[in-house]
Amino acid sequence: MSVSLKGAAIIGQSGGPTSVINASAYGVIRTALDDPNITKVYGAAHGIRGVLDDVLYDMGQEDAKELELLLNTPSSALGSCRYKLKDSNADDTDYKRILEIFKKYDVRYFFYNGGNDSMDTCNKISKYMQKVGYECRIMGVPKTIDNDLWGTDHCPGYGSAARYVATTCMEIYQDARVYDTGMLCVVEIMGRHAGWLTAASSLATAMGCGPDLIYLPERVFDLDAFKADVKRVYSASGKCIVAVSEGIHDKDGKLIAEYGSANAAVDAFGHKQLGGLAATLAGVLLAEGYPKVRPIEFSLLQRCAAHCASQTDVQEAFAAGKAAVECAVSGITDKMVGFERGQDENGNYTCSIKLMELTDVANAEKKIPDEWINAEGNGLLPAFQAYALPLIQGQPERPTENGLPRFARLKKVQAR
Amino acid sequence: MSVSLKGAAIIGQSGGPTSVINASAYGVIRTALDDPNITKVYGAAHGIRGVLDDVLYDMGQEDAKELELLLNTPSSALGSCRYKLKDSNADDTDYKRILEIFKKYDVRYFFYNGGNDSMDTCNKISKYMQKVGYECRIMGVPKTIDNDLWGTDHCPGYGSAARYVATTCMEIYQDARVYDTGMLCVVEIMGRHAGWLTAASSLATAMGCGPDLIYLPERVFDLDAFKADVKRVYSASGKCIVAVSEGIHDKDGKLIAEYGSANAAVDAFGHKQLGGLAATLAGVLLAEGYPKVRPIEFSLLQRCAAHCASQTDVQEAFAAGKAAVECAVSGITDKMVGFERGQDENGNYTCSIKLMELTDVANAEKKIPDEWINAEGNGLLPAFQAYALPLIQGQPERPTENGLPRFARLKKVQAR
Repeated sequence: MSVSLKGAAIIGQSGGPTSVINASAYGVIRTALDDPNITKVYGAAHGIRGVLDDVLYDMGQEDAKELELLLNTPSSALGSCRYKLKDSNADDTDYKRILEIFKKYDVRYFFYNGGNDSMDTCNKISKYMQKVGYECRIMGVPKTIDNDLWGTDHCPGYGSAARYVATTCMEIYQDARVYDTGMLCVVEIMGRHAGWLTAASSLATAMGCGPDLIYLPERVFDLDAFKADVKRVYSASGKCIVAVSEGIHDKDGKLIAEYGSANAAVDAFGHKQLGGLAATLAGVLLAEGYPKVRPIEFSLLQRCAAHCASQTDVQEAFAAGKAAVECAVSGITDKMVGFERGQDENGNYTCSIKLMELTDVANAEKKIPDEWINAEGNGLLPAFQAYALPLIQGQPERPTENGLPRFARLKKVQAR
Repeated sequence: MSVSLKGAAIIGQSGGPTSVINASAYGVIRTALDDPNITKVYGAAHGIRGVLDDVLYDMGQEDAKELELLLNTPSSALGSCRYKLKDSNADDTDYKRILEIFKKYDVRYFFYNGGNDSMDTCNKISKYMQKVGYECRIMGVPKTIDNDLWGTDHCPGYGSAARYVATTCMEIYQDARVYDTGMLCVVEIMGRHAGWLTAASSLATAMGCGPDLIYLPERVFDLDAFKADVKRVYSASGKCIVAVSEGIHDKDGKLIAEYGSANAAVDAFGHKQLGGLAATLAGVLLAEGYPKVRPIEFSLLQRCAAHCASQTDVQEAFAAGKAAVECAVSGITDKMVGFERGQDENGNYTCSIKLMELTDVANAEKKIPDEWINAEGNGLLPAFQAYALPLIQGQPERPTENGLPRFARLKKVQAR
């Protein structure tokens, strides 16, 4: 493979968005637009779907100032998808189509910005292009609030979501303890298989105002132990705040969230009631006789609250996108950009770029080390806080208009 | 009544907290501590309950720096209550007890910081003290995210909650439209009788990224009209974001939120499922065949998100507390501090203090003017935005520790 390769680049975003995934996209787009080897920069509409459907936006037509606003614009500005490519040996229809589009636009650089499933897509495309001998440098750019990508110290998107979770839990603590009456609160946080984001609530606890009990999917959730934990805390203070990961499950692997829907709750319209894990556990506690239990679900807020983003995260997300382009132009392909943690001479946190094989990253999952979780399985130990705290630092300077966020407004001029 | 009156002061907080109610408390406490007429400043634990129970904190024992942190500490730092005083003519037990405590601590100033019900409490105490001839200056200091206090242009607490709602709705808009598949979102916002806070979501709409449909308790909610509205929006774009006030009701006055609980949904534990209005309406839409509907409830977050407070609101909340003390010391009593809106020579928003009779304020409610709501009853007109926008301006400089908010830590030394 020659070092110098001229051609167009595609950037696509996929999977659940984050507060800073656009900062990574901006890192890719800005760096690619400025690189003489890259002739055109296309944004794929809704990730790989945009490639398959031939809906590509010409990023060179965008106003530079608007592009820069991507640094503080949450969610995937190019659109996202949850589309799983088949094994190319079983069905190569999609791959042929992707190759056709790559040839049509002379695409020699492909950057895919996402989590586990997206790295699987990226890996499959990379291997297919190698197999058919189409020269194209393919790089994965990580993002996920779940922080569960293998091999990287952490993932862009996690720091901001963790900052949101910790900050909001501190505020909830103030509010949920305000009355002179008993009160319980169950806070549901995203994370199906890994508890990284729920664990971030322990940063609030370490500040003296956070959840009393934290349950992660890394441990089996036992309903009786849960009730006993709550009883102990509530007996002592008349209050109890619980943080739970949406993925907590019993010893048989059954999600606790599914306990609630088993009996097909039906409302006055005859419609099935939606009820999340927090509502389910609140129901459990109400049945135990507690006077007031408030279920709170962070829902989309935890992954789109750019107003509470971590500046460290914004900068690292941008750096990841930038590095992906620089590496690709220098001749590297088939890798995901990751982060390595280090220390400067004063012992302060530093973060540098490292590269991982896409094959290794695709579909692997990183969970919280067991030794960071307390023996009871209802809290985190200081080692976790030491890990997470550097990632949530810094309040971004956000551009505003009318006192509200000014998000990027892209023209999205479709390439022909 | 003499102008000069020496004695102690009590400040109490009651009702649902806000992001800035402590800024008002700080306005009272700081000003009272600095005033030579006021001999002692007591904070009542959990509002009037602290007076009845003789649990008063000596605010003079607090560190000045910690007190100042109240400016950015959400929720009621002294504790709140929802305690309704009986009519003193029917049962004066509580009033006699309050008088006893006032005499015990030589209380000559009483400041009560709260919403409608709190002003009722404040008014009753004021009238009782007048009746029994105990000289005491009694002032109400408003707060409520509901913004429904009569006679004042707006209420401390509303601007911050409105800023949170507008900002968060903008972020949800980015996220909820990210996929290439259909998506609906139902956002439930506090406000039982008045739709002020839900209406704040229209500030996001005015920015080009907010709810498509907004329903307030000021208008009758018709389920068929709702379904037709959603269908129209969804047909055009494949997305629809709805903001609803928790207090929306049908033509018979029945809360829509109660539709969901009528059939006593029961989960696998045999426990009753909790489901809010957003979940109920999401269930309605799912039954209409939409592919994905996400219910989002802002819950406590909208009233405690100090990290998203409006600096205008923080300053005005402080000013209201300060004015209450200054007025009382100058001889005024039996009033609530309110706000009057004005304009400076450049046409910019100004806010000045005005005083209202406690009798007038107690238990009255201010709703959104009908002419600010569109004819269809599913959106707000520009007159509302012109009203609300000045109230949400400015991002406070928040003291932090470990990158997280540094809230006030009061010693709460109990007075004897």
